[in-house]
Amino acid sequence: MSMQIEIVNGANLNLLGKREPHIYGSETFEAYLEKLREKYPQVEIGYFQSNIEGELINRLHEVGFSAKGIILNAGAYTHTSIALADAIRSIKTPVIEVHISNIFAREPFRHKSYISMVSVGIISGLGLQGYDLAIEYFLNS
Amino acid sequence: MSMQIEIVNGANLNLLGKREPHIYGSETFEAYLEKLREKYPQVEIGYFQSNIEGELINRLHEVGFSAKGIILNAGAYTHTSIALADAIRSIKTPVIEVHISNIFAREPFRHKSYISMVSVGIISGLGLQGYDLAIEYFLNS
Amino acid sequence: MSMQIEIVNGANLNLLGKREPHIYGSETFEAYLEKLREKYPQVEIGYFQSNIEGELINRLHEVGFSAKGIILNAGAYTHTSIALADAIRSIKTPVIEVHISNIFAREPFRHKSYISMVSVGIISGLGLQGYDLAIEYFLNS
Amino acid sequence: MSMQIEIVNGANLNLLGKREPHIYGSETFEAYLEKLREKYPQVEIGYFQSNIEGELINRLHEVGFSAKGIILNAGAYTHTSIALADAIRSIKTPVIEVHISNIFAREPFRHKSYISMVSVGIISGLGLQGYDLAIEYFLNS
Amino acid sequence: MSMQIEIVNGANLNLLGKREPHIYGSETFEAYLEKLREKYPQVEIGYFQSNIEGELINRLHEVGFSAKGIILNAGAYTHTSIALADAIRSIKTPVIEVHISNIFAREPFRHKSYISMVSVGIISGLGLQGYDLAIEYFLNS
Amino acid sequence: MSMQIEIVNGANLNLLGKREPHIYGSETFEAYLEKLREKYPQVEIGYFQSNIEGELINRLHEVGFSAKGIILNAGAYTHTSIALADAIRSIKTPVIEVHISNIFAREPFRHKSYISMVSVGIISGLGLQGYDLAIEYFLNS
Amino acid sequence: MSMQIEIVNGANLNLLGKREPHIYGSETFEAYLEKLREKYPQVEIGYFQSNIEGELINRLHEVGFSAKGIILNAGAYTHTSIALADAIRSIKTPVIEVHISNIFAREPFRHKSYISMVSVGIISGLGLQGYDLAIEYFLNS
Amino acid sequence: MSMQIEIVNGANLNLLGKREPHIYGSETFEAYLEKLREKYPQVEIGYFQSNIEGELINRLHEVGFSAKGIILNAGAYTHTSIALADAIRSIKTPVIEVHISNIFAREPFRHKSYISMVSVGIISGLGLQGYDLAIEYFLNS
Amino acid sequence: MSMQIEIVNGANLNLLGKREPHIYGSETFEAYLEKLREKYPQVEIGYFQSNIEGELINRLHEVGFSAKGIILNAGAYTHTSIALADAIRSIKTPVIEVHISNIFAREPFRHKSYISMVSVGIISGLGLQGYDLAIEYFLNS
Amino acid sequence: MSMQIEIVNGANLNLLGKREPHIYGSETFEAYLEKLREKYPQVEIGYFQSNIEGELINRLHEVGFSAKGIILNAGAYTHTSIALADAIRSIKTPVIEVHISNIFAREPFRHKSYISMVSVGIISGLGLQGYDLAIEYFLNS
Amino acid sequence: MSMQIEIVNGANLNLLGKREPHIYGSETFEAYLEKLREKYPQVEIGYFQSNIEGELINRLHEVGFSAKGIILNAGAYTHTSIALADAIRSIKTPVIEVHISNIFAREPFRHKSYISMVSVGIISGLGLQGYDLAIEYFLNS
Amino acid sequence: MSMQIEIVNGANLNLLGKREPHIYGSETFEAYLEKLREKYPQVEIGYFQSNIEGELINRLHEVGFSAKGIILNAGAYTHTSIALADAIRSIKTPVIEVHISNIFAREPFRHKSYISMVSVGIISGLGLQGYDLAIEYFLNS
Repeated sequence: MSMQIEIVNGANLNLLGKREPHIYGSETFEAYLEKLREKYPQVEIGYFQSNIEGELINRLHEVGFSAKGIILNAGAYTHTSIALADAIRSIKTPVIEVHISNIFAREPFRHKSYISMVSVGIISGLGLQGYDLAIEYFLNS
Repeated sequence: MSMQIEIVNGANLNLLGKREPHIYGSETFEAYLEKLREKYPQVEIGYFQSNIEGELINRLHEVGFSAKGIILNAGAYTHTSIALADAIRSIKTPVIEVHISNIFAREPFRHKSYISMVSVGIISGLGLQGYDLAIEYFLNS
Repeated sequence: MSMQIEIVNGANLNLLGKREPHIYGSETFEAYLEKLREKYPQVEIGYFQSNIEGELINRLHEVGFSAKGIILNAGAYTHTSIALADAIRSIKTPVIEVHISNIFAREPFRHKSYISMVSVGIISGLGLQGYDLAIEYFLNS
Repeated sequence: MSMQIEIVNGANLNLLGKREPHIYGSETFEAYLEKLREKYPQVEIGYFQSNIEGELINRLHEVGFSAKGIILNAGAYTHTSIALADAIRSIKTPVIEVHISNIFAREPFRHKSYISMVSVGIISGLGLQGYDLAIEYFLNS
Repeated sequence: MSMQIEIVNGANLNLLGKREPHIYGSETFEAYLEKLREKYPQVEIGYFQSNIEGELINRLHEVGFSAKGIILNAGAYTHTSIALADAIRSIKTPVIEVHISNIFAREPFRHKSYISMVSVGIISGLGLQGYDLAIEYFLNS
Repeated sequence: MSMQIEIVNGANLNLLGKREPHIYGSETFEAYLEKLREKYPQVEIGYFQSNIEGELINRLHEVGFSAKGIILNAGAYTHTSIALADAIRSIKTPVIEVHISNIFAREPFRHKSYISMVSVGIISGLGLQGYDLAIEYFLNS
Repeated sequence: MSMQIEIVNGANLNLLGKREPHIYGSETFEAYLEKLREKYPQVEIGYFQSNIEGELINRLHEVGFSAKGIILNAGAYTHTSIALADAIRSIKTPVIEVHISNIFAREPFRHKSYISMVSVGIISGLGLQGYDLAIEYFLNS
Repeated sequence: MSMQIEIVNGANLNLLGKREPHIYGSETFEAYLEKLREKYPQVEIGYFQSNIEGELINRLHEVGFSAKGIILNAGAYTHTSIALADAIRSIKTPVIEVHISNIFAREPFRHKSYISMVSVGIISGLGLQGYDLAIEYFLNS
Repeated sequence: MSMQIEIVNGANLNLLGKREPHIYGSETFEAYLEKLREKYPQVEIGYFQSNIEGELINRLHEVGFSAKGIILNAGAYTHTSIALADAIRSIKTPVIEVHISNIFAREPFRHKSYISMVSVGIISGLGLQGYDLAIEYFLNS
Repeated sequence: MSMQIEIVNGANLNLLGKREPHIYGSETFEAYLEKLREKYPQVEIGYFQSNIEGELINRLHEVGFSAKGIILNAGAYTHTSIALADAIRSIKTPVIEVHISNIFAREPFRHKSYISMVSVGIISGLGLQGYDLAIEYFLNS
Repeated sequence: MSMQIEIVNGANLNLLGKREPHIYGSETFEAYLEKLREKYPQVEIGYFQSNIEGELINRLHEVGFSAKGIILNAGAYTHTSIALADAIRSIKTPVIEVHISNIFAREPFRHKSYISMVSVGIISGLGLQGYDLAIEYFLNS
Repeated sequence: MSMQIEIVNGANLNLLGKREPHIYGSETFEAYLEKLREKYPQVEIGYFQSNIEGELINRLHEVGFSAKGIILNAGAYTHTSIALADAIRSIKTPVIEVHISNIFAREPFRHKSYISMVSVGIISGLGLQGYDLAIEYFLNS
């Protein structure tokens, strides 16, 4: 049986490729996801995106007791959502926090993450490759 | 006609019984609710739970002009949601803020509540009994 | 072809006319909107209200690449939502932030706006007229 | 043998009924206490009041190894006294912190409590009923 | 009799058109004022500019008991002058605070305004049009 | 019948004349008090000193419903005692806060006073004369 | 030869009697000054008022090497002007800071005074009588 | 004549041996004191304990002009009492601040000491031995 | 044609030589200026001093489009005046900030300068020589 | 020619395997490094460790103009060293910041990194695998 | 075999006796060390001083797995070095933090110590005797 | 005998000319030093650079009792090193702090200097000329 890893993307990440390409690049997440699934055929990569904080929590609840790992890029909710962090505390599946841009090199309000304290770890600034690396981590741990 | 009291539970409280039992206990809220309704047959106890902040606001709007009292455990939204607090400001029904755990004995970011300033009062740390006591209060006030 | 301007109202603004009338007045937004559309027949005034932060983001995404201007009164999300501000950063249509009351004359937590930094400008404290003035601005710029 | 619960009231609470009645009501604590003892005949309700911080500590030491529960309303010492909190840490009897008014809806310096972090829980804003509810809690826990 | 509205401009606004045109535009205030008076012939638009904080106070005192409205762009005194704010508190005429640039999208020390708390409202970031809109407001209120 | 004014001195003021004479002078308060009573024979000047915060509260309670005025120099409790400030809120007699030294020219922790906000006013830095002036005030108000 | 004492009044104090009478009373300073001069015929009481910070500094320079004492009510400049405080540091005449209202019972930004640290002392909240008391002090010191 | 050293213990130290033994050990202070007196027969070791801040001040006043040294463990008053610090400033005898536990390795509110700034020095974290070492210091200085 | 450099001195600098000579020395600025002009005959050294913030701004406006360099010692306005800093932003001539004393070795409120961020550079603590060095800089750059 | 990547380890990382194994694991870095070199034979992996901040800077200077990438785990210097961050600013080679433990889940003083703002990105909390992933990144970018 | 105790002195302590003698005394550490070794012949007292933070870390690593105790006076690194504190966390030997002067009675930036939180305890302000007392502690614990 | 002045350069200044030339220029310090020595033949200009904080301290100790003046550009250690500042406190030679760029116009963490408070003065933002001017100062003082 293949290993299940869920990618959960939060606010404004549906606009990837269209939104501020100097920061986030010009590839859509869907295009990237296809390549990712090809690269890791041994992994069943789930995907969920929502701009609604509570739907992200719902999704974490749904997959958080069965998946091997969750890759969470909560977008701006990273910096404000204790509720999301509590969802991570409430589930069993380990979470890696990923950011496409280097949030620590941007505005100060992006330097704080409620999610980091309850995640296994964080990968930030390495572009879409961050998702690859997170999968690598789950494969090897 | 029986007195109407609405219990509104917020983020991650659907996982009660399953989530961090050393903090929140191992009883589900549904099981508790049944006992509560039996204990107070003279009260019509409504119940609503959502992980979506805005749906909590919607619910407050719906019941906030007719119910006798609202018992609100907003979960983590307690600490971040001015919108929820504004909803309380906007309605007529008095609100009691309840927390199962003692939020003041936990992380500092749980010590601040936007809801407290607009509630009648707060009961925190007394476990699920906090809901009982809030009902007692509405019965006697 | 008429010019398209979208009004996006956030948390608790559905209760306008009913909610704290000493602060927000006693006119409903729907009644006001009708008069506004009559006053500016040359403008196609869209309207969207939600208490859910993520639905406001969705709406900005939908209209934010075609409308001439957006008038955003995010209610209390103004003060807490980096995600909404990121949505404005992600779209093309310019946004004017409007508040009915003078948020700077109220509680300190209402003095900070994540939205101001990414809007064209702000009109606050001029009542419902603030929406008129924002339309005037778009008409003349 | 009846259950022993001690009520410990701190600074300025001797003036209850006389002091700022718009905040604290017009009933004296003695009158209320009489009713409370009638309501809970199965409980031996001790009572101690002092305006002297150290005498409150002394009282906690005296009853804190034998009583079933302590209901502590330290008045303004709540916000400044680490010594009182240390006294709670030093004894065996669990303490519930009670406030007649909603301290979170008042001045910011009343929002901080050194006592909350070492109490079982807190009941604030529910008037003198808060003492009733605390007794209920001890009866049911 | 025509309605009297006074425009009071503060520090460095005499250099408008010459000063940082990428922020403030290249039109002088005098040129703009002429057009404004033509656009609103029914309004007697007074005008005063000074770089001296106390002279701005003096002017507010002079017109603040007779004019219908004051449009105040205090320049940098906005952020530092409690004395100017007290002058507004001391007079009868309502004041609208106007800024040509969006002060909330600039340096943090420009985000605080002592004047906002005592003004009717604020219009910021809408260029010289902000003065037009303020006049519109006074005409319609 | 003579007017009753109570002087209440707090922590360490019993050492006056002996304690840090470069700051507080070398006269004992008793010697000064005698002269004061001679100077104002029409006033019945009560006097109470204690190093115990709660006894100062007790004294305010005792005289605070009958005296014409209270002159309170709480010593270091000025800067830390919310309980004393609450005592002033609880009584009827107006209080003037007096300090012998200029507390604002000393260490930063002496710049904050919980008592000032609930007193009629403050006289600080004018030496023992501050007590004279406070009596003058009560005589003329 | 009579003793010379200078009263220097700052921002907005020219409106005394007209400005916020619930805070500052309804007597003009000129009327009060006349009575003051009658009360203390042995003192030559100079008087200067300006809304311009730098003119207050100029006045302190002019009288600050010859007068016996200066009574300074700088109005709002109290809270913001290091320049005024430096002027006091630069002269020889001792200064007493007077405020008509109790600045410590008002907005937090009125609690800080740059002037207090370099004055002999402060009298605040005792109305116009504060000026009398300051003269008394100079007469007796 | 033997050298006089006073040990002054503050809040909750009467419970030593009984209170949180994992932090403070299981020896009572009385038992320890006996051994201390045996170890240093050449020193007359006075001892005073109170939970009342003002009584500690009184004791410092009593012994503070005659003893060779004072060893002060004020317990939690260390962190909040400016009045105690002022008492040390008011007396002649040098004071060494002792803490049984390492206050700097505990909660942040225990890191600040008003007493340290006016003591000769501090010994913290070395258990009851801290008292021995303080006596050694006085013997050798 | 000689090079034009303007020296602009702010608050209280007219008292140089008379004011706190232990900090600022005993030479008047006029005496120093004469020597400076002799030392640099090839430079046309303009000089302006005012205690009025707005007059300093006016002077910067007057010389700020023609002079080669401006040497600005704004005195205490350095620490509080955004308006002065904006004046520097508005002109073309580069400004060097000079302070006679080392402002960083004095009170904390003198450590912040709004002017530094918009000046070419700062020379502080080198006495009146700081003006010489600033001229040297302009001569060599 | 093989690609050159330099690993630079800072303070206390020489003790890896020996130091707090519950946080950092029990493998020495040397053992890990051997495996890493075997895994990536196409990469020339340089290694440098020092406990001296300045030697880390020297090393960055040496390899920072020729290597393809630098993997920097500065240990505790991460949180305090602006000098190290300036070294990164001064060189050409891109740097990835790696931490073995999740620094955001530890003490608050470990949450701030001067290095993050000048690095390409950060990998934290993924154990020694973090170094693998950083190499992967350089291989694929 | 004798007990081994290491004294590690940090920044600027090589200048002892020469440096600010009013604070640190006029004895060199070498002279003092000789006397200390004579006083405690049963202890093998090692000594290391460096002005280089990383060399202090190296020394802690060298002696930190074999010595009975370490006496660390890190000088100014006390207040800034997380790396030193991490070194203490990494070793086995207990550390006592010693300061010759009372760091809590000096500048605020000397009040914070990263080392205290990981040391057994702290002795500050007792001059060179602090080292004696630390040895006493190790001898008796 | 010639006058001895030592230039001490800290972190990353060895890369001058190579490092961020838009900020620091493209001249190496060595080239500049040669010109400086030619310009001031009457001065023996010593030079020392290190990236190691402690070596800078060592150098200050070596030259700090004999040189006429020290010109210290500590680079980033300026903002973090209390140890360096203590070294200045410990020596006799006066120090002038020089920065090539205007540190006050850069990132906020560069605005604080521990060195300024113990230096004679500071020259910042005047490029390499700052070193010339510092020498001028020593020549004329």
